[in-house]
Formats: sequence, C-alpha cells, structure tokens
Amino acid sequence: MLSAVTRDSCTKMTSDKFIYTVSIHYDRRLYKQDIAGSVAHARMLAKQGIIKGKDRDDIVAGLAEIKDEIETDSFPWRRDLEDIHMNIENRLREKIGDAAGKLHTARSRNDQVATDMRLYVKEAIDCVLSEIIGFRKTLLDQAKSHSAVVMPGYTHLQRAQPVYFAHHLLAYFEMLGRDAERFTQARNRADVMPLGSGALAGVPYPIDREWVAKELGFGSISDNSMDAVSDRDFLLDFHAAAATCAVHMSRMGEELVLWSSEEFGFVRLSDEYTTGSSMMPQKRNPDFAELARGKTGRVVGNLVTLLMVLKGLPLTYNRDLQEDKESFFDTLDNLLGTLCVMNGMYASLQLSLPNLRNAAEASHVLATDIADYLVEKGIPFRDAHGLSSRISDYAAESGKALSDLALDEYLSFSDYFTEDVLEITVDSSIESRTVLGGTASVSVKHAIEKAEQSLKEENND
Amino acid sequence: MLSAVTRDSCTKMTSDKFIYTVSIHYDRRLYKQDIAGSVAHARMLAKQGIIKGKDRDDIVAGLAEIKDEIETDSFPWRRDLEDIHMNIENRLREKIGDAAGKLHTARSRNDQVATDMRLYVKEAIDCVLSEIIGFRKTLLDQAKSHSAVVMPGYTHLQRAQPVYFAHHLLAYFEMLGRDAERFTQARNRADVMPLGSGALAGVPYPIDREWVAKELGFGSISDNSMDAVSDRDFLLDFHAAAATCAVHMSRMGEELVLWSSEEFGFVRLSDEYTTGSSMMPQKRNPDFAELARGKTGRVVGNLVTLLMVLKGLPLTYNRDLQEDKESFFDTLDNLLGTLCVMNGMYASLQLSLPNLRNAAEASHVLATDIADYLVEKGIPFRDAHGLSSRISDYAAESGKALSDLALDEYLSFSDYFTEDVLEITVDSSIESRTVLGGTASVSVKHAIEKAEQSLKEENND
Amino acid sequence: MLSAVTRDSCTKMTSDKFIYTVSIHYDRRLYKQDIAGSVAHARMLAKQGIIKGKDRDDIVAGLAEIKDEIETDSFPWRRDLEDIHMNIENRLREKIGDAAGKLHTARSRNDQVATDMRLYVKEAIDCVLSEIIGFRKTLLDQAKSHSAVVMPGYTHLQRAQPVYFAHHLLAYFEMLGRDAERFTQARNRADVMPLGSGALAGVPYPIDREWVAKELGFGSISDNSMDAVSDRDFLLDFHAAAATCAVHMSRMGEELVLWSSEEFGFVRLSDEYTTGSSMMPQKRNPDFAELARGKTGRVVGNLVTLLMVLKGLPLTYNRDLQEDKESFFDTLDNLLGTLCVMNGMYASLQLSLPNLRNAAEASHVLATDIADYLVEKGIPFRDAHGLSSRISDYAAESGKALSDLALDEYLSFSDYFTEDVLEITVDSSIESRTVLGGTASVSVKHAIEKAEQSLKEENND
Amino acid sequence: MLSAVTRDSCTKMTSDKFIYTVSIHYDRRLYKQDIAGSVAHARMLAKQGIIKGKDRDDIVAGLAEIKDEIETDSFPWRRDLEDIHMNIENRLREKIGDAAGKLHTARSRNDQVATDMRLYVKEAIDCVLSEIIGFRKTLLDQAKSHSAVVMPGYTHLQRAQPVYFAHHLLAYFEMLGRDAERFTQARNRADVMPLGSGALAGVPYPIDREWVAKELGFGSISDNSMDAVSDRDFLLDFHAAAATCAVHMSRMGEELVLWSSEEFGFVRLSDEYTTGSSMMPQKRNPDFAELARGKTGRVVGNLVTLLMVLKGLPLTYNRDLQEDKESFFDTLDNLLGTLCVMNGMYASLQLSLPNLRNAAEASHVLATDIADYLVEKGIPFRDAHGLSSRISDYAAESGKALSDLALDEYLSFSDYFTEDVLEITVDSSIESRTVLGGTASVSVKHAIEKAEQSLKEENND
Repeated sequence: MLSAVTRDSCTKMTSDKFIYTVSIHYDRRLYKQDIAGSVAHARMLAKQGIIKGKDRDDIVAGLAEIKDEIETDSFPWRRDLEDIHMNIENRLREKIGDAAGKLHTARSRNDQVATDMRLYVKEAIDCVLSEIIGFRKTLLDQAKSHSAVVMPGYTHLQRAQPVYFAHHLLAYFEMLGRDAERFTQARNRADVMPLGSGALAGVPYPIDREWVAKELGFGSISDNSMDAVSDRDFLLDFHAAAATCAVHMSRMGEELVLWSSEEFGFVRLSDEYTTGSSMMPQKRNPDFAELARGKTGRVVGNLVTLLMVLKGLPLTYNRDLQEDKESFFDTLDNLLGTLCVMNGMYASLQLSLPNLRNAAEASHVLATDIADYLVEKGIPFRDAHGLSSRISDYAAESGKALSDLALDEYLSFSDYFTEDVLEITVDSSIESRTVLGGTASVSVKHAIEKAEQSLKEENND
Repeated sequence: MLSAVTRDSCTKMTSDKFIYTVSIHYDRRLYKQDIAGSVAHARMLAKQGIIKGKDRDDIVAGLAEIKDEIETDSFPWRRDLEDIHMNIENRLREKIGDAAGKLHTARSRNDQVATDMRLYVKEAIDCVLSEIIGFRKTLLDQAKSHSAVVMPGYTHLQRAQPVYFAHHLLAYFEMLGRDAERFTQARNRADVMPLGSGALAGVPYPIDREWVAKELGFGSISDNSMDAVSDRDFLLDFHAAAATCAVHMSRMGEELVLWSSEEFGFVRLSDEYTTGSSMMPQKRNPDFAELARGKTGRVVGNLVTLLMVLKGLPLTYNRDLQEDKESFFDTLDNLLGTLCVMNGMYASLQLSLPNLRNAAEASHVLATDIADYLVEKGIPFRDAHGLSSRISDYAAESGKALSDLALDEYLSFSDYFTEDVLEITVDSSIESRTVLGGTASVSVKHAIEKAEQSLKEENND
Repeated sequence: MLSAVTRDSCTKMTSDKFIYTVSIHYDRRLYKQDIAGSVAHARMLAKQGIIKGKDRDDIVAGLAEIKDEIETDSFPWRRDLEDIHMNIENRLREKIGDAAGKLHTARSRNDQVATDMRLYVKEAIDCVLSEIIGFRKTLLDQAKSHSAVVMPGYTHLQRAQPVYFAHHLLAYFEMLGRDAERFTQARNRADVMPLGSGALAGVPYPIDREWVAKELGFGSISDNSMDAVSDRDFLLDFHAAAATCAVHMSRMGEELVLWSSEEFGFVRLSDEYTTGSSMMPQKRNPDFAELARGKTGRVVGNLVTLLMVLKGLPLTYNRDLQEDKESFFDTLDNLLGTLCVMNGMYASLQLSLPNLRNAAEASHVLATDIADYLVEKGIPFRDAHGLSSRISDYAAESGKALSDLALDEYLSFSDYFTEDVLEITVDSSIESRTVLGGTASVSVKHAIEKAEQSLKEENND
Repeated sequence: MLSAVTRDSCTKMTSDKFIYTVSIHYDRRLYKQDIAGSVAHARMLAKQGIIKGKDRDDIVAGLAEIKDEIETDSFPWRRDLEDIHMNIENRLREKIGDAAGKLHTARSRNDQVATDMRLYVKEAIDCVLSEIIGFRKTLLDQAKSHSAVVMPGYTHLQRAQPVYFAHHLLAYFEMLGRDAERFTQARNRADVMPLGSGALAGVPYPIDREWVAKELGFGSISDNSMDAVSDRDFLLDFHAAAATCAVHMSRMGEELVLWSSEEFGFVRLSDEYTTGSSMMPQKRNPDFAELARGKTGRVVGNLVTLLMVLKGLPLTYNRDLQEDKESFFDTLDNLLGTLCVMNGMYASLQLSLPNLRNAAEASHVLATDIADYLVEKGIPFRDAHGLSSRISDYAAESGKALSDLALDEYLSFSDYFTEDVLEITVDSSIESRTVLGGTASVSVKHAIEKAEQSLKEENND
C-alpha cells in the first residue's frame, strides 16, 4: 500500500522557492537569438562611439565562444543564475572580464527579452510556414493522383452528394492556405524591433536603433518604448493562428479516424501511423490521427493561458510576462509535429476505391439531382423538392437506390419525367456541378491549376 | 420559503424541444444581409436566364416589402419557422406565391447562411474599426493636450522612471493600431463570397458567381465549395482580434481603476463614468472601467466557445455550426460598447497634475540616471549599477530623495562624481531619453506627428 | 450594394453609455429570489425591533403585489433604474412610500445580490438534478429493454470486443451519476447565506442572520463578510460541473451522430429529432445530437468567462462581478435543454438489431478471446498475444472471420488448440467477462440492480 | 543576420514521427504507481490461482529491483519503448524472463494507465491539501498576531469602510477552506479503482477486484468497464479545483502587488520575495506575487486543454486521452509552488502600521456610519443616506475628514444630530459591526476560534 504523503515530501517537491522564478530550463532555447541580439548591440555601441572597438571585439569573440559551448553541450549551465540572459552574461564576464559589463550599456532586460522572443517567433513561423507548404503540396499531389475517385460528400455526417476525392482534399488545401496567410501576418507583426526601449522609457544614449534592426533582420523598429516592453500581442497572434490551424488538424484527424474505421473503410493508414493493442492484436488503431485531433486541446489551452496572463496588467513590464514562454514553445512543438505527421499520413494514404464508390452509389445521394431535373423541367424549386422527397421515401421503402428506379415508377409521381431521368447517375450528378469551386472535373481541374500556381508563388517569395 | 422545484417546472422551462433548434431570436439580426443576398441572387438568376424577369421583379419587390416590414416592426415573426431564412422565405411566398420558390434555385441554406454571416461580419468590423479610430483620435488629442505632464512610469507596479503622460497614452495608441490592423486582416478574410457552393458540392446551374460577388461588394469568391460551407475561420479571426483588443481594454481599465483610487489619485473620472454606492454615499466607484476590464472575460470565453464548437468536426456543414452566432453577436456588442465607454472616459479624464508630479519626484526613480551618469564618466555599466544601488539604499535610509543628496554625499561613494551630478533631475532624466520611441519631448513630438499622419491615412482609406 | 457603415451608425448602436451598466434585461430573472430575500429581511428587522411591525407589513404586502405584477406581466420595468433591485425598490416606494426605505436598513446591494444569486443557483441545480435523474432513468429503462442486444465495443473507433448495448448505456449512467454528485456538491457550497455582510464589513445592527437563513432555506451563514460579498466560487462550481456534464453530452451526441450515419446504421433517431435538408430531401440529419455536441462550446466558454473575470480582482466587491450572470443563465438554459433533448432522443431511439449484431460478428473482435484461450492452456500472455495476432492476420488475408476458421487452421499455428477453440463465439466472448463491472449478462444484471437501487435512493432524498 | 530556416531544419526538429507518440519523458513520473499496481495485481493473480506463486515472487522481486533502479537513477530508460509501462514491462522481462508476460494476464494498458493516474492524483491531492492547510495556518497565525491592526476595506478599489487586517486575512482563510473541500471531493472521485476493466469490456478471469482495491488503498471499484477506461472526470475535477484555487492566488497576488507599491505602502515583502532590476537598482519588485498572479493563466489553460481533448470523443479509450498527463503535471507543479510561495510571503510579511491606519482614517470611510447614526435616530435609510452623502461632499470641499467636523456643522444638515455624533470614529465604526462574520473585535475573535477549531479537525482527519 502507498504510504501517506507527508508535508515534508510536498515541501521537498516545491519548497526551493528559487525554482519559482527560474526559467533557464526552457528559455535556454533562446540562446541563439540572445547572442545574435548582443552581437548586433555591441557592434552598434562601438559604431556610435559608446564603447571602444576593443571591447566590441572582446564581446563578439566571447559570445562566439559561448555559442560554440552551448552547441557542443559544454556550456556550464547554472540554475542559480535563473535565466538564459544571466547565464550568458555571467559566462561572458568569466571569459572577457569587465568589458562584459559594457554590453549592457543602453539596454535593459526588458527590451532584450522582448527582442529575443521576437527573433525566435519569426524563425518559428518560418518553420511552421515551411511545414504548411509541404503539407499543401502533399494534398495537391494526392488530389492530382486521385482526380477521378468518387466518394460521398457529407453534411451532418449523412451522405449528401457525390464528390471527387480530389475536391475534398482541395478543401483542406484552402484551409491550410488561410493558415499560411494568418501566420505570415503574425510574422509581420513580430517583425518589429523593441531594442532601444530600455526598461520602459527609452535610453539616454545616442544609439542607432535602425542599424541594429537591419543587422538583426527586423523590418522596422517599435514606436513607443512603454508599449515595446509590455507588448505580447505578437505571441497572441501566433497562438491564435496556431489554434485555428490546430482546429483544422483536428477536423482532418477526425476524418482519418472515421475513414479508417471498419464502418467507413475508405482508407488504410500506413503501418507507420497505426499501432496494435496490448490486448487486441487485430487492431489497427489510428493513434497518430487521434493525437493530431487531441493536441488541439493544448494549443487552445495555451492561447487561453496567455490571454489570461495579460488580462488586467498595467503598463509596462510585469513579471507575469515570464509566463509567455512555455506555452509558446509547447504550441510550437506540438503544431510542427502535428503538421509533419498529418503530411506523412496523407502522403502514404491508401484509398479503398470500391468502398468509396459504393458509398457514393448507395443511398439517396441523387435526390438533389432529381429535384434539379424537375426544376429544369419547369417545376418551382420547393415543389420539385417535395416530389423528390416522396420519390426518395418510395425508393427507401422498396429497398432500391434512386438509380434503380424505372421510368414508370418516376411517372407515377409526376408527368414531367421523361426518359432522360434515367441518365441521372452519380457521375452525371458530379459532372453537372461545373460552377467555379464546384466538384465537376472541369472545376476541380481549374482548382488544381490555381493551387499549383499559388504554391509556386509562395516558393518564389 | 422557496418551494422545492419539481420536475414539471424544469420541463416547462425547457421541454419544448422545438426551441432547441430555434434561432430566430438572434439570427433576425441578419435580415438585411439575408435580403441583400437574395436580391442579388435573384437578379443573377434572371440575368443568366435561369428564372424569368417577371419572377425576379416579384421577388425583389416582395423582399423590399419584407425589409420594410421588419424595419417598421410590422413583420409577423414566427418561432415555428425557426430561423431568419425560413421566416423571410415563407413571408415571400405569402406575398408573391409560387415565384418565391424559384429564389431557391441554385442555392442552399448552407451557402446562404455563410454568405449572410460574412456580409454581417464585414459590416461589424467596419463598425469596430470606426470606434478604434475614434478612440485613437481621442488618445492622440489628449497626448497633445498633456504633452508636458510628467508621471512615474512603472514596471512591476513599482515606480521606475519618469515619463510624460503623453508617452503613456501613445503606448495605448500603438496597441489600438495593431488592433485595427488585425481587424482589417480579419475583414479581408471574411471578404470572400461562398454563394454558389450549394449544399456542399456546387450547383448544377450556369450561375455567375462573380457578378453576384460584385453586386454584394465581396472582394472575391470562394475556391472550394466543401470548404466554403464549413469554414468559420473568418469568425475565429474576428474573435481572436476581439480577444486581443479586449485584453488591451482590460489593461487600460485596470489603470483607470488604479489611477482613480485614493492611493494613486492621478485622475478624476467624470461623473458620467462613476457611480455612488447604496450604502456608502461618499464613493466614486469607477464602474465603467471595471466593466471594461471584466468584459474581457466574455470576449475570451466566446473565442473558446467557437474553437470548441469547431474542434473535431468532419466536413462539411454540421448543425453544430449554428452555435457560431450568439457568441459572435455578444462579443461584437460588448466590444463596441467598451470601445465607446473607454473613449468617453479618456475624452473626459481630468488629471491631478500635482499628484502625478509628486509621484514622479518622490522615491528613487532617478537611480538609473545616476548609473548612466557614472557610465558616461567611464565606469562599466554593471559597476555603475552597483554604486547607484548603494547610493539609493543610503538615500532611503536617510529619508531623502536622490535629488536631495549633496555632492559630498555622492563623493563618499565614488570619486567620479562632479558638480554636474546635481543637475540630474526628473526633467533631465526624462529629456535625456531622446532615442526613437523614447519619452523625451523631442521623441514624443516625433511620435505624435507620426501618429497624426497614420490616422490621416486611415481616414483616407 | 450595402452602404458603407458610418461612425454615426456605430455610435447609434452603442453610444448610450447608460446601457453599459444596465442589467435589467437579464437580472430580472432574479425577481423571485430578490423578493423572497427582502421579505425575510423585513420580517427579521421587525422581529429584532429594528423596524416597526407596521412597516414590515407594508413591505411584505407591497412586495407581494410586485411579485404578482411581474408574474402577470404588468410590472412597469424601467431601464433607467438599471437592475432588478432598483426596479423593485423603486416600485415598492411608489406603493408604500417612505417605509420602503426602511427595508434597506442593515443591508447593502453587495450582500443582497450575492444572496439572490445563491438562492437562484440552488433552485437551478435542483432543476438540473431533476433532469439528470430523469435521463438516468431513461438510460436504465433502455438498458433493461435491450439487455440481450449485442454490439461491438470500440477503442480508437475500431471494433474491439463485443459488448451488450445495455453495458454501453450503463457507462453513460455512471457518467451522469458523477454529474449529479458534482452538482449536489456545488449546491451545498451555494447553500451559505451572505446576507448580513453589508457592503463588506458587516452591519452595525443587532440582526439575526441565522433566523433569516432558516427562513430562506439556507443551510448555513457565511463566516466572513469580506469574503461573502466578493466570493463567486459557487458559480465557478456550477460552471465546472456543467462543463463536465456538457462534455459528457458531447460524447453521447457524437455517438448518436455516428450510430445514425449510413455507415454505422446502428440506430434510427425518431422523426422529432431529425430534420430534412433544404436541398437534399432524402436526408435525416441528426440536428439535435449535433447541437447537443456543439453546445459544449458555449458551456466551456462560459466557464472561461467567469474564471477570467475573477482573475486578479482585489477584495472585496468590484463591478466586474456583474459579469457573473449572463454566462450563468446561458449555461443553465443550454444545459437543461440539452439534457431534455438527449433524454428524449434516447427514450425514442430505435435500434437496428441486425446491423448491431453483424458489426459485432464481423471483423476480428474475437482475437482477444483466442489469446485468452491460449493463456488458459498455459502459454504466457505475451506469446499468446503474438500467436493470436498472426492468426488474425491469416484470417484477414483469407477473407474470413475468426469464427469461420477450422480446427486444422488453428492447429497450424499451435499444438495447444483443441476442439473447444471452435466454441469461441461472440456470445461466449461476451459471457466470459463476468468480472464486476464487465459486460457478461450476470455482470450487467448486477449493474442494473445496483443502478435501480441508486436511483431509488436519490428519489427518496 | 540569422540565416533563413530551411525545410530541413524544421524536419530535424520534428520529423522523427516516433516522438509524436512517445510519453516516457513525462509519464515516468508514474513509475511508483505503476509498480504498486503491478505488485498488487500479481499478488491477486496468484491468490486466485491464475498464476503460480513462483511467478508472483519473481514478478514482485523484479519490480522491487526496477523501483530501486529508477530511484537510484540507474534504470536504462528507452525512448523507443515509448512509455513507462513498456519500459518497466520490458525491463522486467530482461530480469525474470517469460514470467514477466504473465503479469499482463487479465489486464490491459487501458485499465492499467487509468489506475496509475488515479493513484497519482490521490497522492497529488494529499500534497495540495497539505500545502493549503499549511497556508491557512499561516494566515490564521498572522490574523492572531495583527488582530488590532486597522486598514481600509475596499470595494471597487475605493476605500469603503475600516476593517481589521485580521478580518481581511480571514477572508482568504475562507477561500482556501473551500479549496480544500473541493480538492477533497475531487480526491474522493479519483478514489475508485478501474483495474479489472480490461481493454473495455472486463476480463474473462476469476479475478478479485475488491482485494486489489484494498491492497492499493482505493475506496471502491468502478461499476462499468467501458466507463472506467474512458473516464477522465477525476482529472477535470482536479483541474477545476486547481483553477478556482489559482484564481484565489491571483487575487491575493494582486493585493500583494498593490499593497507593496509606493502608492499603497501597506506592506514590505521580505527580501527573499523581491528582486532588483538590471537597470533600476532601487527597485523592490514583487516578482513572486506577480508570478503567483500570472500562473493562473496556465492553470486555467490546462483545464481548457483537457475539456477540449475530451469533447466529442466516442467511447471508450481513444489515444487522445494520452494528452491528459502533461497538463495535469504542469498544473500540479505550479499550484504547489504557488501555494508554497504565497505561504512564505505571508509568513514573512511586514506591515506598515502607520500607512494602514492613515489610509483608514483619511477620506470618507465613516459616511456609512453617519447614515447608520441617522437611521438609529429615526430617519428612513434612504433619506439618511442622502444626508450623509451631502455632508460627505461638504467635508470634501472643506478639505476635512468626517471626523474633523464640529457638531455645528452636522446640525446645519439635520436637527437629528446630537453630541454623540462626535463619537463616531474609525474605531467606533469598526467595533459596531458585531454581527456574525463582521469586522468587530468580538466577531473576529469568534471567527479566529472557529478557524482554529476547523484546522484542528482537519489535522485529526
């Protein structure tokens, strides 16, 4: 039996109050950005005559060594120094002595950390965009490969009208296209350099912010120092874009779970993306698709986290803002992983063509077409709809699909029917929807061309 | 005593299961958009020869009457018809007979409601943008009016460095500028017409989607019918922009609550925006600022609502999507109200100049300047920081502000001090931060000019 | 084309800043509780000699008239009086003159509104509990009616092992049982009377709080006045219980959507709970089940709303707390409606017995039983598992179900098999799981008896 | 300049799709529970004659070795084995050979992991309860130590009525008392053993679930196997209790931030709980209080995470449920840390008695008392309130506190005033609120005694 938990054991777990403010275990991910920011700052300070060239050289060389130590796992991390900035600063002092102190002229922790985060977010978004583009490419390739595969389109998870599988994939292509746009806009809002804002009021040195911005690849500099050190909107933008994208992944994940069930039987996921069961050897569980669906939870939770952290904070910097990092890293890792996995699942998806076709043939997915046929013959839409509904019921009771009915049976409902009603088939239905954005071959072909063009433009950007 | 609640009373409250799917009490707000969409659709159908000119004329005239009935409160709303679309459709049939049915040719409820919502969202965002611009203008006016007012700038809610009140207001101006950008981008993503997507697969009629889009003022048409009827990203975009803006309002509301407290005493809210107390007649409670802060809750809650609704939904339309409307309307109303109220509070804000100045003079807000002074004299930043810290402690123990210290006292800490240390004042401190984005007069003046220019450009758009 | 939205039109929508603080359109739902509280307070004041018997009688009579006016829709509601408390107070003064003022002796708006809300929440929870019990009864009735119906049990939405339909329903019964417990505990925490706490510090009158609590049916009185007026935990408890319950509803709603799809074909929802389609007459859309699933969004959103409102508020009452009501009412209405609708759908559910049986027979749901058979014969579990897996693959490749295999085929995998392996069937599988809580008839029968007993006890409470 | 991120670098970060399902880096925290569960299971299997005594002995001895390896950091963790269960299972096989396989008889991963989590949650809650009790004790000690300290009580962050500091602390004591109750109830709902539910349908072995439950310290066993493996309500209960508690911490954190500001100046946080600034040496930033406030964000975010994960999942186990762990561990660690830190801050809090007293004396906190005085003299409450309001305005205009007014001045407003109005002081005000739960000494003394009694009872439990 488990022994009772004593107060001591709890205290042991948490009492070291130092830990409460320590962030080095996660903010060390910012080392590259922190060093890049310091190098640019030091160069600018020397350029402006605020520090000497010798000091700049020592700083730059010291930071290069530190970067190397970190990347070769030989950096002496210290938890008592709490965060990445103090770890690097202290190490630099060990290496180059007093000159290290000069690096912090005309800079505060507040504008430094905001700069680091923005640099990181920009890189992170580049990464996400690259994954999104890769996934869109996969979807487009699959759409092209399966442009003649028919499946039922659903509303309310009820079979509604036949569509091409390619048309379905292109719906995802659109969703991901909006995700890319959203992340691009989030990136643009992150692309503003706060450095030079000091603790909150600006700095009393003749620094050249625009030179530093250019050096670090920022598109512009912040216009107000108080805003610059307290603003985390660029992270909210990232979280919001990620939440929408994660919801898309959950919808795609849900469909893979449905489609790979025995009831649907539309697809077979490749072995890499299924697992067996400890107790039921026969299972092919779609664990990756389920996780892709489930991970929406944390991505949305992380968005809520930051909104809650920011609520009601007075200007300018408050320590609450330290809570901006872990939720960001968590969302980034999980979103990238999910995009990769979804891409892989779609790239290796095997379709069961007969099952897809049968599902599209069966049931009453042609009822709309019957109604449209009657409209064409001159019957008002709502009346045609009523007739089609009654014919549909009749077919259901007779255990037939609509395409099995004879002309006589149609005529018993309305004189408007003629021989050509028998030409209504799944294929005629699907090919009649030639409207822009519709599911007919011509429309899908047009959509694929447009999609290819848009991917090509993104790659050129 | 309250009697026990019986099962019957509960049932009475909720048993009419019809109510569960009824939306007419909130979706009637879409009447204008629904009618505009139908008029454009009818015109296009006639233009394309799908319906007759006579039918079009009847439809357009009938819808005009209906719009008039609604706007003069004489429309016979029917709950049993559930939603705005069926209410209008049914009324049109009452007015013009069978021709009403023809309006629904080549259109489904699914693309119709998506079109209505997008039209509404575009208008709503125009409205929000107008309020944001108005509020930014107020902030700018107040910044210009109080460009010489000094106050303490805070980090961690501790006085940190003196800043101009105008500088503080311009931080808000920046925040609202990003809000405007975010809403504008959300509007652009809403500006895509789904009409013509049918239930999910497109329609089998030779319709002219681009003509309808132009008629309704849409920038473009959707590229995939399955995506078009199931996509609610444009609402997520709205909610995300609103949540960020609401968080901004909560921060501004918090500051008004703080500043109007007896402890801060920085501002007096105008009588319109305070209330007394039923029990404590002396109170001047900042109820509007508190509500502006509190309403962040529902705006964020509404974002979570929609994310949760969408999670895991397979394509295409599912009835869950009906849950997209109330949360949207609720956020819209509360955000508009909050922007109005905040604008009004800032427009009528009275500053207590002595309290602001005293707070900036008192305490040790000049410690940074002492450190910067020593750096200028050649002492490394970290050492200067240490010295300044010790001087600051000394002053605290002696019950003096730093500006009260004599040269001798300074010299007892370091030989680097000379007479000019006595020139360090709140004003010298503030005026030294001339960096772009800093708080010195010259920087603030530059920022105000830039802000005026940006507002001017927005108005021209 | 829609005309551009002008600033004026926005302002018209929201500029009446009075509206911002007005709550009468929703807090009028508290009228019964507000009046009950006032009647009890007045009686106590007279009992304690704080007001005269005549005043008490006038107050009680006046309030009775007001209650009657409200319930007969003849009460003159005034928006300018903002809330329910002022509307009633003012009306009382119109009716009985100055004596109305005496009602507010030893009471503040802060303890009054907290008392009203607690009374309302207690009633609301009684209502929810009544619906939950009713729904549990339906589930139990259906379990008893279908105790011999076999279906596949799922993990990962893959068929895993056969179970009785009754066993599945009893899983829901358990979930709802926890919901009931949670709501009961939430009710207990609401059952504490704050009246007598005044604005925040208590009141300087010799009132008898315990007498009032008894009169109003409260279980106890609050122990600290500052906590009493600022505490909204009892609403968080309600929201948390509702969120969990709503998640349960979403899971049940999802299953109804799946089961009523053509692919599963397990159930037919009664006509009352399905709708057709404007464009596709043949559809039987499970709109109610979808809404039950979708409404989880707002219930969770409302929980987030209140958590966000409360975050970071200093003691005691702050106006932000007014934001506690609408989200509560919204969750209450939607949860009650959902429970009703789910109850109705389950009460009228028609099962397709052949489809359920076929799904349980097909595929490899017996693989676990083969493994267990081998374990019984002496093979270590993991090895048995491996063998079963290979047999399962063999069957799949041969296009057979496991129950179709001949003894020879089994023997080709292991000598441990004997004739009795052919006795492994869906029924033998299901009946072997006789463990407490398992799916065998004897276990399900036991569970049904226990469930009946627990419902009986709840009704007696 | 930072080099562009290439697709490769992203892929490197995330492409190892194996990682996507790996949980060993966080679920290793469950090792103790996993082993305890296996030991009890093995003993029961032998007791029931399902495995041999020798196998049981090998299993138990092997697991003891494994536990020791883990606790001495010599366990060979393998990421390719994904989770804690497979790591232990595989290691056991390495140690004892085939007998290891027998441990998995009559058990599935699904009921195993649910059992582990419930064991862990129970221990975690014991830990949280221990911290809450410790913090309540500190608050009570401080209340006793400062029972005569007067401060202003606030509503709307406006000074409202004087209260004892002890009374304020006891409000927190109440809040934490409800937290303890909530966690205790959550613990009770976790205290149900799922083991024996198998994968979903129960197991076909004559196991003794009740014996195992007793061995593991569970209060009862689950009643339905399908519910048992898919239920995560006990985690939702934990998250909901934690979210409410975290909101309490945010309110207390906010007050510490306010109180330690220069404007309030009520308290001085001990050096351990403040930090200086890199740029502003004079600062005493309340970083720990800010983090305690900010960490509410992640605790609420984690609650949303799990609600979102569970939404819409069909029965029974789905892999999405793996996402239940990290959010739980994160909330646990942060909540425990916050309780510790808040406890420490309150235990070491230094009060500035003059500032507290002055704030209570200043301004118009006695206006309610004047009104109450007039009521006592026979003036209706609302009229008395009006008079008091006018006197209060008069005092404000004259720059006096109410206690500075002379009898003549009072008489100029009403004849009802007599000499005794001058006896109204902050102390008379505070001591007049003798109602149960009020702020008078006698009430606070009573509350302290009750609080001591309740803590004593908790300790005896």
